[in-house]
Amino acid sequence: MEKKKGLFITFEGIDGSGKTTQLELVDKYLKEKNLKTLLTLEPGGCELGKNIRQILLHYDSYVNDTAELFLYLADRAQHTDTVILKGLKEGSIVLCDRFIDSTAAYQGYGRGFDLEKIDYLNKAATLGLVPDLTFVFDIDLETAQKRVGKTKDRMEKEKLEFHKKVKEGYLDLAKKYPDRIKVIDSTQSIEKIHFEVRKIIDKVL
Amino acid sequence: MEKKKGLFITFEGIDGSGKTTQLELVDKYLKEKNLKTLLTLEPGGCELGKNIRQILLHYDSYVNDTAELFLYLADRAQHTDTVILKGLKEGSIVLCDRFIDSTAAYQGYGRGFDLEKIDYLNKAATLGLVPDLTFVFDIDLETAQKRVGKTKDRMEKEKLEFHKKVKEGYLDLAKKYPDRIKVIDSTQSIEKIHFEVRKIIDKVL
Repeated sequence: MEKKKGLFITFEGIDGSGKTTQLELVDKYLKEKNLKTLLTLEPGGCELGKNIRQILLHYDSYVNDTAELFLYLADRAQHTDTVILKGLKEGSIVLCDRFIDSTAAYQGYGRGFDLEKIDYLNKAATLGLVPDLTFVFDIDLETAQKRVGKTKDRMEKEKLEFHKKVKEGYLDLAKKYPDRIKVIDSTQSIEKIHFEVRKIIDKVL
Repeated sequence: MEKKKGLFITFEGIDGSGKTTQLELVDKYLKEKNLKTLLTLEPGGCELGKNIRQILLHYDSYVNDTAELFLYLADRAQHTDTVILKGLKEGSIVLCDRFIDSTAAYQGYGRGFDLEKIDYLNKAATLGLVPDLTFVFDIDLETAQKRVGKTKDRMEKEKLEFHKKVKEGYLDLAKKYPDRIKVIDSTQSIEKIHFEVRKIIDKVL
């Protein structure tokens, strides 16, 4: 893998955790500083990935867990190659909504796949690219469910027990990688959360 | 994995090798013997897989090699779970156009992925299911290209050099698994090939 020049920041958390709102506020903040940003997401951050996203989030029948895992990895391989690495090489600050930790949290902690195997597969998909900084927006399940609302995608429709495992998985990942992953209390107001996020980003810039 | 009752036969070879024609003749032959068969294919042998097949064979822009590999595996995981294992459990003779050896031949020998890693990933996708019998229809590249014709899908459009590696890969796999994989000279007439295939199947029945 070529040496990258930009900065790679990922935004993680269960659905309804407010990560996307915070990503957009960070983008605005960095643009005000005249920094070049690239906003992207998984699944579906590239053309081919949009087709995969459609299957992953909107296929309305049974999906095999291993098939689900491989579809997320396929999306990640194409997205890392054609969007993220390209953006980093051009010197952008890449802000990505979900990345490798989502697969560890959802398919690992959530579905029960072995975490070492997920690590190995993530590395195969990303050629070893790891974010410089990752925010995990932590929130109680009840508030998150309320925020998601009634129109839920395939993953959001999963049982509360599943989302609980994912939430706990994220906290566990943060303990495992304390230098990279910062947990933010996402029950606070949007402004307070943004202030906290900004302080961490300022240190990295 | 539950113990299967049926018989699992796969048909492999480069595009234009005549494998699909032979699969259909075998199906006819077995039905005449009043045996229950299930015809299927990869990619696209199940509903979800049809969406994946559309990407794999008809996406008309660059596809990352690792994304391609994971998409084939996603299709296989869903297909094995929802179609093949179900058919075998019901006692059918499952005839499948392409399976694990296609990934070894195309993504392994063709694209250069490590064969042991492909084995490992195939096992993850199939829960370890291996065909009882596999036919590799071997043919020279020129004849195969003529048979494919002018309307080619994304894989068929690959360079001759790629198809050469795949062809040689299949022969290598047959050497590695001589009990399971039978190589058939596919330059012969359809009738002669069918006769040869039938002799082998009769022994297994």
